[in-house]
Amino acid sequence: MNGGDGPHSYLKNSHFQRQATIVSRTMIEEAIAKKLDVKCFSSNPFRLADLGCSVGPNTFIAMQHIVEAVERKYLAQGLNSEMPEFQVFFNDHVANDFNTLFASLPTERRYFACGVPGSFHGRLFPESSIHFMFSSHALHWLSKVPEELLDKNSPAWNRGRIHYTSGPEEVSHAYAAQFEHDMEIFLSARAKELVVGAMIVLLIPALPNGIPASQSPFGVMFDVLGASLMDMAKEGLISEAEVDSFNLPIHLASPEQMTELVERNECLIIERMELVDPRSNLVGPINGKECAMFLRAVLEGVFAQHFGSGIIDQLFDRLSKKIMESSHQLESGNKEGTLLFVVLRRK
Amino acid sequence: MNGGDGPHSYLKNSHFQRQATIVSRTMIEEAIAKKLDVKCFSSNPFRLADLGCSVGPNTFIAMQHIVEAVERKYLAQGLNSEMPEFQVFFNDHVANDFNTLFASLPTERRYFACGVPGSFHGRLFPESSIHFMFSSHALHWLSKVPEELLDKNSPAWNRGRIHYTSGPEEVSHAYAAQFEHDMEIFLSARAKELVVGAMIVLLIPALPNGIPASQSPFGVMFDVLGASLMDMAKEGLISEAEVDSFNLPIHLASPEQMTELVERNECLIIERMELVDPRSNLVGPINGKECAMFLRAVLEGVFAQHFGSGIIDQLFDRLSKKIMESSHQLESGNKEGTLLFVVLRRK
Repeated sequence: MNGGDGPHSYLKNSHFQRQATIVSRTMIEEAIAKKLDVKCFSSNPFRLADLGCSVGPNTFIAMQHIVEAVERKYLAQGLNSEMPEFQVFFNDHVANDFNTLFASLPTERRYFACGVPGSFHGRLFPESSIHFMFSSHALHWLSKVPEELLDKNSPAWNRGRIHYTSGPEEVSHAYAAQFEHDMEIFLSARAKELVVGAMIVLLIPALPNGIPASQSPFGVMFDVLGASLMDMAKEGLISEAEVDSFNLPIHLASPEQMTELVERNECLIIERMELVDPRSNLVGPINGKECAMFLRAVLEGVFAQHFGSGIIDQLFDRLSKKIMESSHQLESGNKEGTLLFVVLRRK
Repeated sequence: MNGGDGPHSYLKNSHFQRQATIVSRTMIEEAIAKKLDVKCFSSNPFRLADLGCSVGPNTFIAMQHIVEAVERKYLAQGLNSEMPEFQVFFNDHVANDFNTLFASLPTERRYFACGVPGSFHGRLFPESSIHFMFSSHALHWLSKVPEELLDKNSPAWNRGRIHYTSGPEEVSHAYAAQFEHDMEIFLSARAKELVVGAMIVLLIPALPNGIPASQSPFGVMFDVLGASLMDMAKEGLISEAEVDSFNLPIHLASPEQMTELVERNECLIIERMELVDPRSNLVGPINGKECAMFLRAVLEGVFAQHFGSGIIDQLFDRLSKKIMESSHQLESGNKEGTLLFVVLRRK
């Protein structure tokens, strides 16, 4: 994610993720009201974590809503006198801009705030210490690019593309295998860290069952990004080998795949899982520039690391124009939803 | 503190504080071995906090030693099977460079790490949630400059000086009153946050009972800094009014004063309090440049904020030369110790 608060920062270009927060708010409140039994938490304080929080402001909005919903649940369960203090753990990679995150913490917050640096593909918290976990727009990131994508002798060599969208089956399989491996580690770490009865809410960019990535707006955008890079390679601005050796470490899961992965973990049960469509709240036609800014805030870092920062302005300018050319494809894509809303409970 | 890892960074210029860590290590180990009853802590994990941790590496060294000493205590108390997981909370001001702190966390650490942004002159953690607190070279910082020092009509107006050293009694009193107010809030917040039986270890730059600041090396250095600024004012590089309106928010407490302040708090008892001399470990004569670099890493920020960053190089160059002129005064100063080692326990 782009740190700071400049024109290309995540802070200034995360409206899309904020739409997701708005769409999911009622669903989270409902999950807490109906499924979170706070009576089984003996100890003060109530500890929350946001995994992959980035720099705000979305994480602050989400944490505030969750704290308020949990407070209402304590009142609803007649536990007025046992209202806990809240402690919120903001987690993201070590390279996340925690300085910006901390500087923008809401001053009127009703919780103690901590930053937790480190990958959620591993343990982050002591055993049985967290009562509620949240993760939005983070779990689709793979812990690494599957190695076979870079092997010229492998059928999964991903030549001329930057993602599995529109690629051969072997490439999709390599991505799926990495995602399954990552999720297994993720769920097993979380199961250890959660108090019995605790809840996890996940919002993950995803695909409906049985739909190829090329029919999803994310897939279309990754294809368009790949095509822009290939155009630049043909014009000699970068080399084709550079495009061949770059792959976006992003996987779009289906509800079916997620269900199977959670069911492999013996400590977690699914309380709710469904696709939602945050775009349904956005009005008007697709705005190429806004889409490109959104993708830039999220992806600039991975592109700059591989191709150098010199190509970034041009890449996202081209993307902005190409998105307008693909706007029909983007708008007519599946309407079943692009975001998987998942509620899990620790048995 | 200066962030980053440049030539003037705290990270590269904190040998003096590291000496204090080395000198106090055995004393901390002894306090844990003799006075910390880990049997009374029922719950996993064991939570530690470093208040005013800056950016490392001193905080990592101290936390590692404390974790190891607590592990030995669990073994000594026959609690092998109940060895807890450790969670360390690194606290400092919101403006601290947490990005540098997180990037330099030891990879082989045996604890879960968190950053906690905020002033320790207030609550930082939920009630009864911390088992061991540590604070080194931080509590001598006042939460603010006492207002009367800036009031031309007050007998505490601190004209031509930047500290109470060598100033009139009224100035010393204003500093002492602010320190007492700050410590009262500090101790009351910590008493709430600590588990019963928990321990606090404080290392605070201090003065022996009955000795004026002008006889302490810190006092001498603040006088020399003030004199350097007045020289610059006489040369027209800054204005005298700028010097008059600047005061270092640093107080040097005596064991007597600290004892009285802790005794006012009903939840904390003193297990040990004594002056130590970290300089006793440093060999060779005083090095003006090194002293100036040490002070610069710690104080550059407060000076730059008031006088602008343009004067900083020259100020610390002058300081370096003046320290050599005052080296006799610095070396012959009190030998009773410059650092107060305090162990408190939560009743």
